Amino acid sequence: MTPQLALTMGDPAGVGPEIILKACAKLHGRIRAGEMRLLIIGSNRVLAETCAFLGLALDVPAVKETDAAWPALACLQACPEGAPIRPGVLSAQGGTFAYHAVERAVRLSQTGRVQGIVTAPLNKEALNLAGHHFAGHTDLLAKLSGASASVMMLVHGKMRVSHLTTHVALEEVPKLLTAERLRYVIDVTYEALLGLGLPRPRIAVAALNPHAGEGGMFGRQDLDVSAPVIAQCVAENRDVVGPVPGDTVFVKLRAGQFDAVVAMYHDQGHIPVKLLGFHVDPVTGAWHALSGVNVTLGLPLVRTSVDHGTAFDIAGKGIADETSIIEAIDYALKLAAGRAAAKATPH
Amino acid sequence: MTPQLALTMGDPAGVGPEIILKACAKLHGRIRAGEMRLLIIGSNRVLAETCAFLGLALDVPAVKETDAAWPALACLQACPEGAPIRPGVLSAQGGTFAYHAVERAVRLSQTGRVQGIVTAPLNKEALNLAGHHFAGHTDLLAKLSGASASVMMLVHGKMRVSHLTTHVALEEVPKLLTAERLRYVIDVTYEALLGLGLPRPRIAVAALNPHAGEGGMFGRQDLDVSAPVIAQCVAENRDVVGPVPGDTVFVKLRAGQFDAVVAMYHDQGHIPVKLLGFHVDPVTGAWHALSGVNVTLGLPLVRTSVDHGTAFDIAGKGIADETSIIEAIDYALKLAAGRAAAKATPH
Repeated sequence: MTPQLALTMGDPAGVGPEIILKACAKLHGRIRAGEMRLLIIGSNRVLAETCAFLGLALDVPAVKETDAAWPALACLQACPEGAPIRPGVLSAQGGTFAYHAVERAVRLSQTGRVQGIVTAPLNKEALNLAGHHFAGHTDLLAKLSGASASVMMLVHGKMRVSHLTTHVALEEVPKLLTAERLRYVIDVTYEALLGLGLPRPRIAVAALNPHAGEGGMFGRQDLDVSAPVIAQCVAENRDVVGPVPGDTVFVKLRAGQFDAVVAMYHDQGHIPVKLLGFHVDPVTGAWHALSGVNVTLGLPLVRTSVDHGTAFDIAGKGIADETSIIEAIDYALKLAAGRAAAKATPH
Repeated sequence: MTPQLALTMGDPAGVGPEIILKACAKLHGRIRAGEMRLLIIGSNRVLAETCAFLGLALDVPAVKETDAAWPALACLQACPEGAPIRPGVLSAQGGTFAYHAVERAVRLSQTGRVQGIVTAPLNKEALNLAGHHFAGHTDLLAKLSGASASVMMLVHGKMRVSHLTTHVALEEVPKLLTAERLRYVIDVTYEALLGLGLPRPRIAVAALNPHAGEGGMFGRQDLDVSAPVIAQCVAENRDVVGPVPGDTVFVKLRAGQFDAVVAMYHDQGHIPVKLLGFHVDPVTGAWHALSGVNVTLGLPLVRTSVDHGTAFDIAGKGIADETSIIEAIDYALKLAAGRAAAKATPH
């Protein structure tokens, strides 16, 4: 069966509509070949305006949630249109659209009509202005899908990095490194790697402290918290190593020594992935080739996302890069196939 | 005048002797052309043995510290030989050599006979076994040269990263971010960039917290401590920006938007530099192309170092990579030339 993905537009005032349409144009052959079915959820008006502005000859018919069947490429209105949304302008209306797109996508996922959700970026301030008080997509998805915890995994090629913590002050990180959380992050990462078709996943746990604390000279958490969890995983015949010092673990990941790294905090995991995946034009300073996928693990549904923000500064200019959302779509397809295979195979 | 550098051997049981000799062999033409003069300080016996083992036809005459003049390539015994030192074997004797090599190099620097010191790696445990209680080269050099503070700058190509903190537990980092220390690190980085011939250095200060704390939502240090220091630098007409979120500041550095970044902690600065400079062979797992220089700023002398350790596991095998020490020699030459020019030009 051709997998159906929901593409949520995020904030319609951001680059979401543009990158979604550019991606659909590039993927058109694959859609027609039956590789995927895509349902764009957001503002149909902004979608049509953006399509015209970009001069794309794409046919994206509007459908209803309750239609018995949807075309392979279609769009669904997330909520009623209000005042016109202008590119790059923050508004509560943009947050309302972002919220309802995700809410509908989760519902369609729960009823089995979509096998994965790919989200374009939302603006946290707009979301909060609209009365939806969440730190971002991940929180929102966890709440709507009833998950008690989740893990952010960033992916660029074979660089896969799961995060023990993300949007917290650096001073909070050492307190949040607990045996329970580390084990959970290793476990959901392991499951995800199995789902990606890796029969014996190899995971390295990054150290919290420099040089993994150098035998306790600078911090004991790597010895006292991480090492026993890793030893337990090894005792259960899992290929888990560490704590590996942060400054070399990503060099080894890049060389293929592991399938994934568990990073302790946001910048530890984001610096290597973005350094390899993002490029800034030295002359113009413009971002380009934004390669990288953000995968949320631990949810009862498949969710991937672009690895960048709404980019209000370039919204509506036709210069946004669709690389990341195409990668996010491909990753969602892989994860959805893994879930389908796992369901089909009794344990 | 041809600049004279001291090359300290570090622990003679590590890769130091090998990488120094391989570097001298590669640099021989430049030495003969009068670009540099090199004085290797360590164990003359290990140096001769390593030279024979590597089959290098290098003439490295032994000299005395008090000789009126030294050949362009020479070696100096750091301290008396004791029991034979074997590659890869930790010993107090190795630590004794490492200590005395640095001690002599600092003395020669203070008397003006050498214009810069390039250090091969020492082993901290051996150093401590020998009764010299220092955390490493930087501490030792600061003590011997009378410096009250210093800054580690890692360099790989145009990636220059100064560190606010280095070998401390992650939980100590937020407390060590003070306005005084940050200003000091910016200032010595600025001076170093001027010395490298950059007339108007551009420095970015990395944020401590993810997303620079997102307006105080996850940590206030970037707003309360870093931002005022940066504003003060700008008020003094210096090109300093930040705090820039850690996950994008190195992408921008790589693109040439800055000449240097001030990182808040060890892994934040080391991850990007090593990721771009170090490579692991995917098949054998061997490290190669270890490109990167460690520069100590804030000392009354020029000091650069390789960006890797003693590598006891591969010592004596002839497979160590000399890239990093050649880069360290070149960087020391540049910094020495900058110091000479600054002395020659009245402020």
